[in-house]
Amino acid sequence: MSRVAVVLSGCGYLDGSEITEAVATLVALSQHGMHYDCYAPDRPQRHVVDHLSGEGTEESRNILVEAARIARGNVRALDQLNPDEYDAIVFPGGFGAAKNLCTFAEEGVNARMHDDVKAAIMPFVLAKKPVVAICAAPLLLGLAAREAGYSKAQITVGYGGNPLSDAIEAWGQFHMPLAVDQACLDRTHAFISTPAYMFDEASPAAIFASVQAAIAALREILG
Amino acid sequence: MSRVAVVLSGCGYLDGSEITEAVATLVALSQHGMHYDCYAPDRPQRHVVDHLSGEGTEESRNILVEAARIARGNVRALDQLNPDEYDAIVFPGGFGAAKNLCTFAEEGVNARMHDDVKAAIMPFVLAKKPVVAICAAPLLLGLAAREAGYSKAQITVGYGGNPLSDAIEAWGQFHMPLAVDQACLDRTHAFISTPAYMFDEASPAAIFASVQAAIAALREILG
Repeated sequence: MSRVAVVLSGCGYLDGSEITEAVATLVALSQHGMHYDCYAPDRPQRHVVDHLSGEGTEESRNILVEAARIARGNVRALDQLNPDEYDAIVFPGGFGAAKNLCTFAEEGVNARMHDDVKAAIMPFVLAKKPVVAICAAPLLLGLAAREAGYSKAQITVGYGGNPLSDAIEAWGQFHMPLAVDQACLDRTHAFISTPAYMFDEASPAAIFASVQAAIAALREILG
Repeated sequence: MSRVAVVLSGCGYLDGSEITEAVATLVALSQHGMHYDCYAPDRPQRHVVDHLSGEGTEESRNILVEAARIARGNVRALDQLNPDEYDAIVFPGGFGAAKNLCTFAEEGVNARMHDDVKAAIMPFVLAKKPVVAICAAPLLLGLAAREAGYSKAQITVGYGGNPLSDAIEAWGQFHMPLAVDQACLDRTHAFISTPAYMFDEASPAAIFASVQAAIAALREILG
């Protein structure tokens, strides 16, 4: 049975993990009979957003504690992740990927991964174990590819022509324009990306199909 | 196109809507091409639970604001729901159904529905428009059935022999013992219930199948 680490970044697309993408990931892994464990950084969210008004609040919430809402309590601190125990790692999207996992939300093209994220992802990248990234999370593929010295690794965040695809290209990688339900599989670098809610008007059924395409590609390369 | 109201009770199974069930509901409705709108009570949650530790906290959170995390902001106050606009109503589960939608968590068999919930559900029940309830939310079917003067309406919360099934029977209805992926369709009363995380060790794939069975039954009776 394949073993997969899933990295969450909170609970809610404006300040954490996009919930439909995160749930679709767990459902799809489960449908394919893969074992998964959830992880999340044990530190405060960059901020807390009221998802009804879309406005920031004065609250403080912990990424790991909020991720536990999606994972029903079955989630561990990201710095406890042992890459040797897993065949692949998956990052659902949401603004949390750009706010809590790396500094893209503040620093754009000058973004860096947080230390706990870098320590989690790089062993998979360097061992050519599959890394799956959904929606905004392919930013992490771009940053990790640059860190690994890759050139022109294939990554999608949808049709492109946005700050995320621009950054991925600025980091020396290749942005592949794809529709919502098309996963980008870069076999050379074992990268899988899928647009999901980069198409923000997409239906939940389309988001589910987008994530299923990514996990089907993962299943294929894990054999 | 069928129009469906989905009633959320927060965001997280210990103090609100069970997230996998809520997402599975929206995905399944979307896969069937049904239009849906989300609603939630605009009032404080009964309490806030840290989903990592399982312990209560001193925080206060609003049900509608937290439900907006699942609904990506597209959610309205439950007291704004106009039953005439919808063909059916769906209640995902989670402890929120027993804590924020009715008083079962405090009062058990003496539970009552909150006023905004009662005002939302009863027009559907009395018009024999389908009411779908998942996991713990079939408590609302039991309460509404009693309110409508029904006897032996068929409702499931899984295999039974628990405080929920006991209450449903105490309220004069019939608890139907069913497995996780089997929806209970009572055609006479247009009630649909499905166990989902009443089987708390079930996989996300099984939860998804449980919800899909309920929405397939809804599709069938809406025609």
